[in-house]
Amino acid sequence: MLAQFSIVPLDKGASVGSEVARVLQIIDNSGLPYKLNPMGTVVEGSWDEVMELIRTCHYETVTGSDRVLTSITIDDRKGMQNRMEGKIASLERRLHKSLRK
Amino acid sequence: MLAQFSIVPLDKGASVGSEVARVLQIIDNSGLPYKLNPMGTVVEGSWDEVMELIRTCHYETVTGSDRVLTSITIDDRKGMQNRMEGKIASLERRLHKSLRK
Amino acid sequence: MLAQFSIVPLDKGASVGSEVARVLQIIDNSGLPYKLNPMGTVVEGSWDEVMELIRTCHYETVTGSDRVLTSITIDDRKGMQNRMEGKIASLERRLHKSLRK
Amino acid sequence: MLAQFSIVPLDKGASVGSEVARVLQIIDNSGLPYKLNPMGTVVEGSWDEVMELIRTCHYETVTGSDRVLTSITIDDRKGMQNRMEGKIASLERRLHKSLRK
Repeated sequence: MLAQFSIVPLDKGASVGSEVARVLQIIDNSGLPYKLNPMGTVVEGSWDEVMELIRTCHYETVTGSDRVLTSITIDDRKGMQNRMEGKIASLERRLHKSLRK
Repeated sequence: MLAQFSIVPLDKGASVGSEVARVLQIIDNSGLPYKLNPMGTVVEGSWDEVMELIRTCHYETVTGSDRVLTSITIDDRKGMQNRMEGKIASLERRLHKSLRK
Repeated sequence: MLAQFSIVPLDKGASVGSEVARVLQIIDNSGLPYKLNPMGTVVEGSWDEVMELIRTCHYETVTGSDRVLTSITIDDRKGMQNRMEGKIASLERRLHKSLRK
Repeated sequence: MLAQFSIVPLDKGASVGSEVARVLQIIDNSGLPYKLNPMGTVVEGSWDEVMELIRTCHYETVTGSDRVLTSITIDDRKGMQNRMEGKIASLERRLHKSLRK
């Protein structure tokens, strides 16, 4: 399945770059396929792989914060693989053009 | 922690009431505190309690559908309990009035 | 259409009750049907009614904060009215029981 | 401000590529900076620019569907520009490495 998530501490002020960087380091080390975008990170894997990663990232942020908001969106489609690349490639084929990504 | 979630199959047409009803039955049987609203369900518990419930509900829906979208939003605040009732009560005290809920 | 939304400032610390209370006062005064839940507020109206309200609430929060996160989820179904009450009532009829809400 | 959005019809079956492609064509023609990711599209602009675009995309999908779910997440930070590129570049500088995107 594909899952996008973002994790935000509420008590660190407007700049949360150092908290987000610690989470990105965990994601980058996890071995799961991922893509960072300006609003979150998309990962691909089984429910247990994905949720274990998000749990680790959430608690890394909880360690240094009194309140953390975590958002997760899952797209689980049977029989499809490598959707991280495949969904966008499929849209580009339909439109016969390259999209910004 | 508090978590709101919703689970939607994409291949069941505009009416997904029977799929949502099966999920609500699981939630109602789970023993976790919950509140249903018109856009999802809020539950309160530990990460593992909440995620085990959402996993069960997600896979109940996956059983009958080729594609399922699941959204989860978590609000994890240290040292607070019974936030299911407490957050709204606190707002009503601030505003000195009863709000629709 | 139904829309759930929540508005969170990032630079006010773990307690954002006073910011949320100001938003709730605007919603309560708007005249649109709404229901508050522990994770956000659901409103019912046309796109323009709903988005004008959310815009007003977002900018009320922006006034006092350097960074604001606003989440909106819309469920737009043709030919249905009073879904604020109707969706839950329909689920309770299917399950032949009253649900917590 | 930055906004990520996704628009999903519920009555078109598991494959919604043709509906999503029509929306992407509108976004690509809009002139607003955007980035497509596997779970949605991030755009950057003023509230009115962004919401007018999302409104157009939502109603393009409503035209052919009885039920449409639209999700929007807004990150509105004062005094920051070109955050579409800047947020990720800032994280890479912090971590002294290139991230997958």
